[in-house]
Amino acid sequence: MLQVEGRNPVHELLQKGKAVRVLVARESRDDPRVQEIMRLAGRLKTPVEVTERSGLDKLSETGRHQGVIAFVEAERYVPIRRILDAEEPCVLILDRVQDPMNLGSVLRTAEATEVSGVVIPKRGGVGLTPTVLRASMGGGLNVPVAQGSLFQAVKLLKEAGVKVVGVDPSGTTEYFDERLTGVLALVLGGEGRGISPTLLSKCDSVVRIPMRGQITSLNVGVAAAVVLYERMRQRRSPG
Amino acid sequence: MLQVEGRNPVHELLQKGKAVRVLVARESRDDPRVQEIMRLAGRLKTPVEVTERSGLDKLSETGRHQGVIAFVEAERYVPIRRILDAEEPCVLILDRVQDPMNLGSVLRTAEATEVSGVVIPKRGGVGLTPTVLRASMGGGLNVPVAQGSLFQAVKLLKEAGVKVVGVDPSGTTEYFDERLTGVLALVLGGEGRGISPTLLSKCDSVVRIPMRGQITSLNVGVAAAVVLYERMRQRRSPG
Repeated sequence: MLQVEGRNPVHELLQKGKAVRVLVARESRDDPRVQEIMRLAGRLKTPVEVTERSGLDKLSETGRHQGVIAFVEAERYVPIRRILDAEEPCVLILDRVQDPMNLGSVLRTAEATEVSGVVIPKRGGVGLTPTVLRASMGGGLNVPVAQGSLFQAVKLLKEAGVKVVGVDPSGTTEYFDERLTGVLALVLGGEGRGISPTLLSKCDSVVRIPMRGQITSLNVGVAAAVVLYERMRQRRSPG
Repeated sequence: MLQVEGRNPVHELLQKGKAVRVLVARESRDDPRVQEIMRLAGRLKTPVEVTERSGLDKLSETGRHQGVIAFVEAERYVPIRRILDAEEPCVLILDRVQDPMNLGSVLRTAEATEVSGVVIPKRGGVGLTPTVLRASMGGGLNVPVAQGSLFQAVKLLKEAGVKVVGVDPSGTTEYFDERLTGVLALVLGGEGRGISPTLLSKCDSVVRIPMRGQITSLNVGVAAAVVLYERMRQRRSPG
């Protein structure tokens, strides 16, 4: 069972019909936004339980529940093969992203840019925690996420004929000079360390995002967005 | 006096020759990275003071000083006109960005994409705090930031012949269909509320970033990056 915290995320979850239970702090019952959540839950026949704020405080993993926590019966992770079943898969492979805000940001953008799925490693990176789901604004519930060996994922993708492109400062081609349409997997590295050399060596090509100033790397959420939106642009106006 | 916290940010500040004083926690002196900072400070004749960790804890505004805090004699904000003096100005106007991580992210990207300056309001948004500077990875020290009336900034920019483009979900044109080369000001709104309607009405045009999923807005740091990198692409390959 996944838990989603905060007024906007819970409201969004209800609208999507994905919440199975809502917990409301007695002290927040009079807030108009919380009342709206309770009305919506009532219409959808989703059980609402009113309890003490201290109960929510204990449950909260983000520390920012704003008086509402909802639960969702979600398959936490999907098998990697499920992601490949998409019609024209665009897969993100994230090599050890550790900051939950960054993973949330990537999932939020992934949802907006029709990414078919995201692969994260079992170790060395953050998983689908409530903080990640909160930062993803719901993107983490809409975009399938697989957890497993990144090497195996790349191998499976290549066998399926998917072009695997690394996004790394070591790339020799600038990302807007690479064809990003069609079936595609993008590999991005986490904070500081970037993509591990062995994983990088498995990529069909490596592109870089040009940086004109003194800073040498972008936040992974920003890097993913820049490349994913270039893909959207190229798909819209090829050539 | 601005303060910069953490090993990487302090190291970067020293390399740029901008630190005027460095504070090191006695307990962190043996860390190789801290020793490197102390050697570099020594070479640059920047005074280093070793003190108790508790002293740094008290000073710290980010809560993540990692045993080092440096001070920089920076002009905290520049006059708006200074930003306009750039040869081909590209100005960012941020309408009430409140999250320090988001402002930091925008400044980091702004430095990488040759933005001439950023204008933020006096009220309703976060300023150049240590947390912002830390998140900007130094971008906040390299990109001039002006603080003042956004209306006045837009007025000055228009008088100077600068095209003012709002980035907002209400835009009718998609951002990659807008000419973003040449002198340009981009207006972006903060979390949740977006650009205020009166400021939006002063823009010469309003573009939107297409969103294909159920989420209706992007993080402001991501939105700024997507549009600024499209500007870089268009400048490189016009037409």
